[in-house]
Amino acid sequence: MDDLRDYKVTKIEYDKILICVDSDDFVSSKNAFNYACSLAKHYDAKLGIVSVLETGDLNIFQSLDKDTLAERRNEIKELLEGYGQKAKTYGVKDVHLMVTEGNPGHVIVEKVIPAFEPDLVIVGVEEKNRNRNTIGSQAARIVNDSKVSVSVIR
Amino acid sequence: MDDLRDYKVTKIEYDKILICVDSDDFVSSKNAFNYACSLAKHYDAKLGIVSVLETGDLNIFQSLDKDTLAERRNEIKELLEGYGQKAKTYGVKDVHLMVTEGNPGHVIVEKVIPAFEPDLVIVGVEEKNRNRNTIGSQAARIVNDSKVSVSVIR
Repeated sequence: MDDLRDYKVTKIEYDKILICVDSDDFVSSKNAFNYACSLAKHYDAKLGIVSVLETGDLNIFQSLDKDTLAERRNEIKELLEGYGQKAKTYGVKDVHLMVTEGNPGHVIVEKVIPAFEPDLVIVGVEEKNRNRNTIGSQAARIVNDSKVSVSVIR
Repeated sequence: MDDLRDYKVTKIEYDKILICVDSDDFVSSKNAFNYACSLAKHYDAKLGIVSVLETGDLNIFQSLDKDTLAERRNEIKELLEGYGQKAKTYGVKDVHLMVTEGNPGHVIVEKVIPAFEPDLVIVGVEEKNRNRNTIGSQAARIVNDSKVSVSVIR
């Protein structure tokens, strides 16, 4: 109670916001992306947009095939550029695009967040998980293991 | 990709924000409370502040003792009024205080959220859990089981 007595509310500002978009699930990413862009524009923050090429999604033959991998990389790059364009059109000035590969939760916590150093990470909830009443293992991992604040947007 | 082509970023606005404050842990609640007040003021949103009397915290003799319970209830009510005052001083116009009892994660998901109907729930991360690298079981339950967006603030 003594701590509270002397406390004064401080405005929270964000300089760097990271949004994780799912390359296979536009619906789940949409609300989260709207939220990320709204905050980034309001705070005049840098917006990092990351998408992970889930190498586990490709079967063992596909993952050995360089062409398939190159094709998927290209698709994700195009998708990200699409998102980046939408953010800029909306009014986010500073947009940073990142493509990476591996297990999304792991890669985002271990590589993307330490490199980009966001103040806030925003993730969506997959449609299928929304019905199953869970946020999904990747989102859970980001919420639990990252050292920064995370917003789970439904 | 086609979905993305026709998509336009929409500003996200919040009408009702719920912040869960821990009656025993001012430090973990502070950042979350700052964030909640910042958003509520910006969006001119109603701010619900809830604190749960953890009945599991009291031992079996204490929990049979009506005086102890009444005392704890009173402490939490005073604490909440303190938070409410801080939010108003900061500039949040519409503040709604709620005290409830039981297991925090369960009560917030099953009772408080359905009754208050927030667009966004904000929770802090307990100091001890921050070191242990986990958000704690109560926060995890709220993130996982509530049907609304949840921000976990560190």
